[in-house]
Amino acid sequence: MDQARRFPLPPGSTIGVFGSGQLGRMLAMEARRMGYRLHTYSPESDSPTGQIADLKIAAAYDDCEAVRAFAKGVDALTFEFENVPSLVAEIAAEEGVPVRPSGTILHAAQNRRREKSMLRRAGLPVTPYHFVKDVAELEEAVQEIGYPAILKTAAFGYDGKGQTRIEPGVRPSAAWQLFGGQSCVLEAHVDFERELSMVAARGVHGDFAAYPLVENRHVNHILDITIAPAEVEPAVAAEAERLARRLCENLKLVGVLCIEFFLLPKSRIDRDVQSSGSAATGRLLINEIAPRPHNSGHWTIEGAVTSQFEQQLRTVSGHGPGSTEMLRPSVMLNLLGDLWHYGEPDWQALLTVPDAKLHLYGKHEARPGRKMGHLTVTADSTDAALETGLAARAALRRH
Amino acid sequence: MDQARRFPLPPGSTIGVFGSGQLGRMLAMEARRMGYRLHTYSPESDSPTGQIADLKIAAAYDDCEAVRAFAKGVDALTFEFENVPSLVAEIAAEEGVPVRPSGTILHAAQNRRREKSMLRRAGLPVTPYHFVKDVAELEEAVQEIGYPAILKTAAFGYDGKGQTRIEPGVRPSAAWQLFGGQSCVLEAHVDFERELSMVAARGVHGDFAAYPLVENRHVNHILDITIAPAEVEPAVAAEAERLARRLCENLKLVGVLCIEFFLLPKSRIDRDVQSSGSAATGRLLINEIAPRPHNSGHWTIEGAVTSQFEQQLRTVSGHGPGSTEMLRPSVMLNLLGDLWHYGEPDWQALLTVPDAKLHLYGKHEARPGRKMGHLTVTADSTDAALETGLAARAALRRH
Repeated sequence: MDQARRFPLPPGSTIGVFGSGQLGRMLAMEARRMGYRLHTYSPESDSPTGQIADLKIAAAYDDCEAVRAFAKGVDALTFEFENVPSLVAEIAAEEGVPVRPSGTILHAAQNRRREKSMLRRAGLPVTPYHFVKDVAELEEAVQEIGYPAILKTAAFGYDGKGQTRIEPGVRPSAAWQLFGGQSCVLEAHVDFERELSMVAARGVHGDFAAYPLVENRHVNHILDITIAPAEVEPAVAAEAERLARRLCENLKLVGVLCIEFFLLPKSRIDRDVQSSGSAATGRLLINEIAPRPHNSGHWTIEGAVTSQFEQQLRTVSGHGPGSTEMLRPSVMLNLLGDLWHYGEPDWQALLTVPDAKLHLYGKHEARPGRKMGHLTVTADSTDAALETGLAARAALRRH
Repeated sequence: MDQARRFPLPPGSTIGVFGSGQLGRMLAMEARRMGYRLHTYSPESDSPTGQIADLKIAAAYDDCEAVRAFAKGVDALTFEFENVPSLVAEIAAEEGVPVRPSGTILHAAQNRRREKSMLRRAGLPVTPYHFVKDVAELEEAVQEIGYPAILKTAAFGYDGKGQTRIEPGVRPSAAWQLFGGQSCVLEAHVDFERELSMVAARGVHGDFAAYPLVENRHVNHILDITIAPAEVEPAVAAEAERLARRLCENLKLVGVLCIEFFLLPKSRIDRDVQSSGSAATGRLLINEIAPRPHNSGHWTIEGAVTSQFEQQLRTVSGHGPGSTEMLRPSVMLNLLGDLWHYGEPDWQALLTVPDAKLHLYGKHEARPGRKMGHLTVTADSTDAALETGLAARAALRRH
């Protein structure tokens, strides 16, 4: 945009984001607050991000000319989901507009095979797995990994899509056909104790900041509740931060990243776990990463000094991350489209809860499983926040 | 808008705001977050509120037809400054759209004479004063009140405009001519110790919630810094809340209101002070009120569970106020246009301060004294927050 563009970008500069969902929307809100401009690009026309953005472009991700024009109009580019074609990064490079995180990271995060290889190369602990590209390889992998095993498409699904469980009675060929012969990853089933995650940010000069480790509870493979901070031994939290730092440095990340972990039960640590070694508890396995703000970081809007979206804005603009200090224990509860099943939720009842902070994403159609919004509650303890949050969400339900 | 409008208004409803400055902008941000729609009406075309609103109408406040059309398009009306003609409230009443706070409160707050009378009727402590409508009355009032006295236009100025100090050497007639013979209020000079303020909210069913009492520091009659909470004896804070509650109840306020107080030195309490009686310290005098969110409440965005703008949205929509609990001691520092005197402020330096939260209002022209934005810092103590905040703001200055 500005021919004499200088980094770090000051307020008044324009950030372009590929994707137009709620993550882009919350980024746009922070951009507005801090005086930055935000443009959004996606195939959607009336989108959560577009409602807040300074400019919204509705075009296909593979429309080279539209992507080029979009890149020309901004000072830096980022994305709010991984499945942006790598073409986008190439065009941005041609136009001299930085993409943060880089196209390389985007590329790795688009595919489980590349992601697993990258994590393993970085010496990070992952679930035992095999790549499989035909039924014969799958059968062999099942023999090695044992039952139950999880077959996942190499191309990422989300919210549990693109994965199936292989139990002793299931014929591998049947599972294979389920995904139409796409190349896949077969993972060992991990009997984890809890799911945890950590959001971290890294600036262009390598300054790193991680939020506290949080606990995530899923329902039907969709994130339901995040509890911040996770109640874990200090050694586990320290290990998570060490792993997050190692990953960010290894990737030379500029931006925000979330790591989802499985916490293994204390009793089940054994030599099969591909641990990172050095003073580790060995109880953390990396399940997935996302090189962007994450649903499990939404609590930071109210609960931390700097939100994960301000972190994204800061790092993409070339500034260092802000403080990740937690203000108070926080709980985030997703509001899925299912809540609309019996009609409009009972907003009046919700708004009688003085501590529940409501976020709605401006989506018009409430489909089951669709993330329509979330609630955040901060309190003196996670137990108190969870109790208030659950009561607030229950108040929304009409029967 | 919706013929079958029902209160309290659920998300998806539309709030109309008269005025289009930063207060409307921050209201619009909260409305967006919570899934409400916001329309703004003012004579300005590219405005801080308009940049965020769902709809912006640029028309004169006395354009009846435009006001009527605007009122028809919303579910409830509010304002972000007092000087909206009372005509607006009448048209809204004709269209059956509630104005919150009511037109009566708006009317009282537009004029120092009406405001003082209202406060006195409510038994609230105000500075000794006289109304004056000609030089003869002014001379008489000066005799009674003594020197120094402050002559203020009855019609409100803001940020110290529309007032002059009458010292022993000043001829009353000269002071009188300064305001072109407008009707005025002559107030006794109050030798106060500190300036304090309290933001409170009251719902349609009378539920009342006040934020902690804060301390304000002014420079050239413009708010410079707010320190939350104010360091005062508990009895003073309790008295402030009692006065705020009495005022809100007396006005039957539905909305948000700020009271500015003078805190008198302990040694100077005497019978001249028109005190509220009952268990009061007698150290608080009401200087001014504003029936809307206030600059001295901006810290609530980061520092309190519910921001003053969410309070406005909640109460205008017919919900009760949210929690006014403070998360951490906070300091708010205004960023005036003067900071732009030597060119663009040094944003890069500011953004190296990980705890400073930046708010910019999207104003294009940085005039001296113009409020361009603010910073908020939260910390474990107000001293720590103030130190960080002052350092952050100093970092912005180019010399």
